[in-house]
Amino acid sequence: MKKEPIVCGIDIGGTNTVIGFLNKNGDCLKEISLPTNSELTSDEYFKNISGQIQETLTTISSNYNLVGIGIGAPNANYQKCSIENPPNLNWGIVDVSLTMKNYFDLPIAIINDAKAATIGELHFGAGQGMKNFILITLGTGLGGGIVLNGELVHGQDGLAGEIGHMIYKEDGRQCKCGQRGCLETYVSATGIVETAKELLKYSNFQSILRKIDIPEIDSKLIFKAALDDDVLALNAFELTGRALGTQLAVAASIINPESIFLLGGLAGAGELIIEPTKMYMEKNLFAPFKNKIKILPSGLNIVNAAVLGAGALIWRELETVEIVLVKN
Amino acid sequence: MKKEPIVCGIDIGGTNTVIGFLNKNGDCLKEISLPTNSELTSDEYFKNISGQIQETLTTISSNYNLVGIGIGAPNANYQKCSIENPPNLNWGIVDVSLTMKNYFDLPIAIINDAKAATIGELHFGAGQGMKNFILITLGTGLGGGIVLNGELVHGQDGLAGEIGHMIYKEDGRQCKCGQRGCLETYVSATGIVETAKELLKYSNFQSILRKIDIPEIDSKLIFKAALDDDVLALNAFELTGRALGTQLAVAASIINPESIFLLGGLAGAGELIIEPTKMYMEKNLFAPFKNKIKILPSGLNIVNAAVLGAGALIWRELETVEIVLVKN
Repeated sequence: MKKEPIVCGIDIGGTNTVIGFLNKNGDCLKEISLPTNSELTSDEYFKNISGQIQETLTTISSNYNLVGIGIGAPNANYQKCSIENPPNLNWGIVDVSLTMKNYFDLPIAIINDAKAATIGELHFGAGQGMKNFILITLGTGLGGGIVLNGELVHGQDGLAGEIGHMIYKEDGRQCKCGQRGCLETYVSATGIVETAKELLKYSNFQSILRKIDIPEIDSKLIFKAALDDDVLALNAFELTGRALGTQLAVAASIINPESIFLLGGLAGAGELIIEPTKMYMEKNLFAPFKNKIKILPSGLNIVNAAVLGAGALIWRELETVEIVLVKN
Repeated sequence: MKKEPIVCGIDIGGTNTVIGFLNKNGDCLKEISLPTNSELTSDEYFKNISGQIQETLTTISSNYNLVGIGIGAPNANYQKCSIENPPNLNWGIVDVSLTMKNYFDLPIAIINDAKAATIGELHFGAGQGMKNFILITLGTGLGGGIVLNGELVHGQDGLAGEIGHMIYKEDGRQCKCGQRGCLETYVSATGIVETAKELLKYSNFQSILRKIDIPEIDSKLIFKAALDDDVLALNAFELTGRALGTQLAVAASIINPESIFLLGGLAGAGELIIEPTKMYMEKNLFAPFKNKIKILPSGLNIVNAAVLGAGALIWRELETVEIVLVKN
């Protein structure tokens, strides 16, 4: 009997790794989650997840045949199939293809986590059927992916879509990338905390947050305060949306998208972030695009988007290979 | 005997219209140039150029067969095959396909002039063989085109690549598009004149331009003064390059191009504009791209680029039609 082909879609997050076993329709037959464990070397880590995959394969029906593994990870290089100095993991540069070949004789593909989420949105989320959109992931940092003419844009070095590293303020906040004033230093969980701290220091806004020790303040506390109409917290959201909206206007004027999706922790703040983002995007948008570009919450959560996208990535790779084989 | 198929590539400029008769290799068998004549209605204009094309066809060898007409024009809408309120021409909205069908029973395609130049650069200029680049046209305004994965990017409404309408300064100079602070109000022949006038008014820089009546100052005089090391004129170029470089860093961080081409009148100032542009682009560029993206003068002049590109556009359309026919 012919076995049904399945793939693994893996999302390597800073805290957790999620592995989905997916068929071609994106149905998840099984999902496992394990701590990423930053103390492991990359060799130990990939040995560990490979073991988990092999073990799980024995527990699901023998009617399935694993045909490829797609991975979404921070600082992934699609062209080289590598991860390069991922934040919070002391891995240096990892040749993922070579490492995984120790355990699986299968096609492997890897892509930046925000781009994996973008592919997920395109194939299985609210981006289905859309030809041109931008996806923004708002977590600890700000990631991005661009779809044009129904295809994810890679650019010359596989680094297109780095919306988080557009300069928002010349000589502004120090970014991990080495540059100053990058958008992600203002628009991210880290960025909004920094903004709230500046407001606590330099403004006279009343706030419940003034009763909390400064190092204790995180994005969840700011969100909670904003829901209670805390003036300072609302201002922090307003400034965050202003930064995001202003730069989305710039990106949209170049890209001409149909929609912009927001995905991830900070996007969960809903209208608190979407409303000022829309307002400042519209204010700065190229005239023919005004009132035409929708800012929408994603149709998926960020882990599902990345797992489904990583799976879709490897399905696409396999199709390309098949086409090449047929042609030859 | 089978006739060789040729196309017309037409560049509708504010002052002149250039019509090239091109074979598939981009060889120009004949080129004619005529004043665009802003006093004509659009009907009169297209009747006129159609007459010129038909007349010219009778003078070139009967071995050629005209198979399509491609047009580059300001404010052209590729998807609707129309021109919409072109600057300096009192045409309103023109259905170019319908109008030209009065004279030719042939495929017609029209595209924004900067995008036509981009296709020209891709197929016949310095962009040959490149997969990812940005082209900037620096004339009276600032136009742009983006090539990703070897294809011109259109976006949702055919308006992708509008680099000239990125906001450079919030609440800055008034742009014709209705917005304030657009890049093209700073980086264009018009923009540099405005900058020089501001420097004359608000700075103490010595300058030969102080001897000239303000309304007489144009970009050519500023260029000439800069060649003579005029401090104010050099400052005007520096500020223009700063604006362009800063925004190219933003565009490049999103697009991840291999190169950026500069084309058109102001680009003719060479290192005077390229050097500050490079400096400010590098300063603001996403770290992994630093010292990797080349800023290059175009391999073509702006009229040739647009004529060749308009020709290439219609060749491509014809190929697409053929493929569709074969499939059916």
